[in-house]
Amino acid sequence: MASERKFWNQKTFSLVTGASQGIGECIAVEFCKKFGPGSTIVLTARSREGLESTKKQILENSPNINVQVECCDLSKPDMKTLEEMAAHGTKGEVYDLYLLVHNAGSEGGGHLALEMTDLAYWQSYMTVNVYSAPILMQAFLNQVPEGRKKCVVNISSLAAVQPISGLGSYCVGKAAREMYYRVLAEENPDLEVLNYSPGPVKTAMIDRIINNLGGEVRSNFVKMRDEDSLVKPHDTIAKLITLLAQGGYKSGSHLDYFDP
Amino acid sequence: MASERKFWNQKTFSLVTGASQGIGECIAVEFCKKFGPGSTIVLTARSREGLESTKKQILENSPNINVQVECCDLSKPDMKTLEEMAAHGTKGEVYDLYLLVHNAGSEGGGHLALEMTDLAYWQSYMTVNVYSAPILMQAFLNQVPEGRKKCVVNISSLAAVQPISGLGSYCVGKAAREMYYRVLAEENPDLEVLNYSPGPVKTAMIDRIINNLGGEVRSNFVKMRDEDSLVKPHDTIAKLITLLAQGGYKSGSHLDYFDP
Repeated sequence: MASERKFWNQKTFSLVTGASQGIGECIAVEFCKKFGPGSTIVLTARSREGLESTKKQILENSPNINVQVECCDLSKPDMKTLEEMAAHGTKGEVYDLYLLVHNAGSEGGGHLALEMTDLAYWQSYMTVNVYSAPILMQAFLNQVPEGRKKCVVNISSLAAVQPISGLGSYCVGKAAREMYYRVLAEENPDLEVLNYSPGPVKTAMIDRIINNLGGEVRSNFVKMRDEDSLVKPHDTIAKLITLLAQGGYKSGSHLDYFDP
Repeated sequence: MASERKFWNQKTFSLVTGASQGIGECIAVEFCKKFGPGSTIVLTARSREGLESTKKQILENSPNINVQVECCDLSKPDMKTLEEMAAHGTKGEVYDLYLLVHNAGSEGGGHLALEMTDLAYWQSYMTVNVYSAPILMQAFLNQVPEGRKKCVVNISSLAAVQPISGLGSYCVGKAAREMYYRVLAEENPDLEVLNYSPGPVKTAMIDRIINNLGGEVRSNFVKMRDEDSLVKPHDTIAKLITLLAQGGYKSGSHLDYFDP
């Protein structure tokens, strides 16, 4: 058995984006079970209803976690708003571990690469999925006192490292976002950065791809759904929890659910 | 010796972006020496003066090539303008090979990843370096008659696959652009796509990095300059010409000057 470092069971301040549903919801609920006494989690997404539902699940499982719900739209990322959101969460408390999980993202319209000629679409898609990441990162890090352990998990994708027909915007956005975090890791040795690719997870995003897209990408996902080979959120988050418990990867690495 | 396919010495229609200087200038001059009779090259960039200088060099070496000079600003990419530019080049002629070389790009402001929080900067940088690529691609392909051989070379970088401290925008832009071309290759089996990383080439871009940036990235380039270990444009373009002559790579591949 691989030896573990001290990561979980500390007094943790965490912020999870896209926490209203799917992978983000599962991360929030499962991570809170691993946090130590006095921990706080800030749940953000656009939908207050979804966030309140995630909060309810957290409190049923982990009644001692302080849970904050903050509606936030990353299509209009604003440093002041994001800083206030993070500061509102910490309330000036000092924590042992500061953990940002940037999970929010959208799958894009499923245009073919030859049709990706709409500048306004690019700018809107990349703002939500890429440009908001550095603003969120800085807003979060501004809350971390000198010398405290800090970690960011980017929920990445196989699409960051491998092209997928019919998912051009998704691939470009994920590749750009992951490279941002890789440069961040190079430049900030005191920040732990993990790009985690969760596999094809059974969430509403897969349903949207099946309902809205055509071609090979749709049929691949239909096949995975019908064969029940999509990854279950709990399984991929359990792997993520283990990876973080073990550490030992190079900061900035891309680790995948299917890695041995 | 590796066997060669038929690629050079055909009647070729080519369009080279960023052809006014540096790598683009060298590509234009050296590729024209390899084109067959009746070939046309369209040289584009912002600077007419630089393009005219490239044209002069081409005609000194390859007097039978039809050379068109077209000023073009990819910070405001417009389908109609780019289509007219490409159509103006072909003049309705039919060619055996249609070859787009998308070399134009900018190195970015050298912000640290933590400082990349300016949305307007992102949008402007990514428009020139990424979003213009699909518009250019479609404008070019609209000139290619059914069934003719077509190829696009994206001048990529090590920065597309490896993070470099101090060059965050450059890395993100190159990663995003290369992924765009990789998806394009997946979706269009009749189009040959090559992402070519030319190595650290002795051009004005390196001078700008040395003059404008600080830190480790500057000192690395200063060291390479002072040790004369920067790659000479002719050497990297000779390698590119050989790779295209040989073919045999998977369309969409990232090939590097330093690959064995």
